[in-house]
Amino acid sequence: MSGFFSVYGISTGLLVSGDDILDRVISALKNTEAKTIEDGDILLFAESPLSTTEGRNVRLDDITPSAEAYRLSDKYHLDPRVAEVVLMESDTIVGGIPGYLLAGKWNLILPNAGVDESNAPNGWVTRLPADPEASAGRLRKGIMERTGKDAAVIIIDSRTHSMRLGVSGVAIGCSGILPITDERGKPDLYGNKLQVTRRAIADSLASTAELLMGESSEGVPVVLVRGYPYVRCENCKIETISAEEDLFLSLGK
Amino acid sequence: MSGFFSVYGISTGLLVSGDDILDRVISALKNTEAKTIEDGDILLFAESPLSTTEGRNVRLDDITPSAEAYRLSDKYHLDPRVAEVVLMESDTIVGGIPGYLLAGKWNLILPNAGVDESNAPNGWVTRLPADPEASAGRLRKGIMERTGKDAAVIIIDSRTHSMRLGVSGVAIGCSGILPITDERGKPDLYGNKLQVTRRAIADSLASTAELLMGESSEGVPVVLVRGYPYVRCENCKIETISAEEDLFLSLGK
Repeated sequence: MSGFFSVYGISTGLLVSGDDILDRVISALKNTEAKTIEDGDILLFAESPLSTTEGRNVRLDDITPSAEAYRLSDKYHLDPRVAEVVLMESDTIVGGIPGYLLAGKWNLILPNAGVDESNAPNGWVTRLPADPEASAGRLRKGIMERTGKDAAVIIIDSRTHSMRLGVSGVAIGCSGILPITDERGKPDLYGNKLQVTRRAIADSLASTAELLMGESSEGVPVVLVRGYPYVRCENCKIETISAEEDLFLSLGK
Repeated sequence: MSGFFSVYGISTGLLVSGDDILDRVISALKNTEAKTIEDGDILLFAESPLSTTEGRNVRLDDITPSAEAYRLSDKYHLDPRVAEVVLMESDTIVGGIPGYLLAGKWNLILPNAGVDESNAPNGWVTRLPADPEASAGRLRKGIMERTGKDAAVIIIDSRTHSMRLGVSGVAIGCSGILPITDERGKPDLYGNKLQVTRRAIADSLASTAELLMGESSEGVPVVLVRGYPYVRCENCKIETISAEEDLFLSLGK
């Protein structure tokens, strides 16, 4: 696959609960080189500003910690109200390190189950979208209704990876795009069958978007990718490997 | 950080041992929209075609397996000659699964130490570049000598990540670019200090490049990124976290 594609950061300014994120995106796009949403574009939404607009932020003063939250906050040195929100957001708590609980959620192990004091008003925390796949579907439908264009949507998060320093992007929800391509059985350069490879297209697009998003006060909650020839898929979701499966059992197969 | 950047795949055609990869890139670039290498461009080289030009491929018929290679090939069901090359390329063997040895190399755990039968002529295997940091420095210097332009260079590989399906990109060598940015202490959207985050810029650029490279017969060994405002660094190298450190101890810090 040769060719080229372009990546545009969309600066919407600060988003708060109840904001219409699509209106803000469509409006801010006019100030970019991309101008409008076109058929075949991919829009990538950072999870935290998106969930903020979805009303998912929690004011810590409204939280009454349980005995279990107090026990965990004591053991791992975090605010008992934060511990309580993490408990609400988790399937299970598998451990912790100072400041963080290691939570089982969505068949993954997530630090604090994605509950975060960064990029929230003082005294509030952000939570992951309740259902990122549903968010992606809703946003894609909204784009079609407002612009008549068929774009793909990916909801993304930042993660660390084993043996790597620093965060990069992962996809936690998608609509209209095949997130993992399967090249097993395709010929390699010499006509041999490739033994491996599934390619994590949606994760790689998420990392591409993160390059323009930043994590701090930069205010680029949405990135548009234009010209990338993705495989369309109406009912694809993000699949993950369970935390119990070994890293190397997968080997990309 | 707003703005936009562009990503160009460079189809050089098949590369073999001894080929001058930079000549091929500069020549193939003329057939892309990018046309030439410019100051501030980032060139990303896939490890396998690069190491092929560096003469790193091995003909299996030239390999005499040791007793240890026979033992491992028996236990993990791989060609004893491949096992021998993996032994040559590894610091240590920590285990295996059918078809692969799990090898310690460069402070990482790498399946087969990066030794691969894909994209090599029948009866040959590819190995990782002997010193990807040195390769990156050499390529950057070569670009400067031939074009007068100051571009960054990143050598990339494909990896699976824990709890993720499919491969994405990682950087294994770089020259002229800060691979990990440190945003700890920067203000978030609300002026609070960000607790986390180091951002894996070089890994995210690697994943961006992989979107155009493919793993099969597509023949895009090099990708050019134009317009991304990276931080320049003369003596930066790729740092990793040791395999012994826990995934979640890092948390992007």
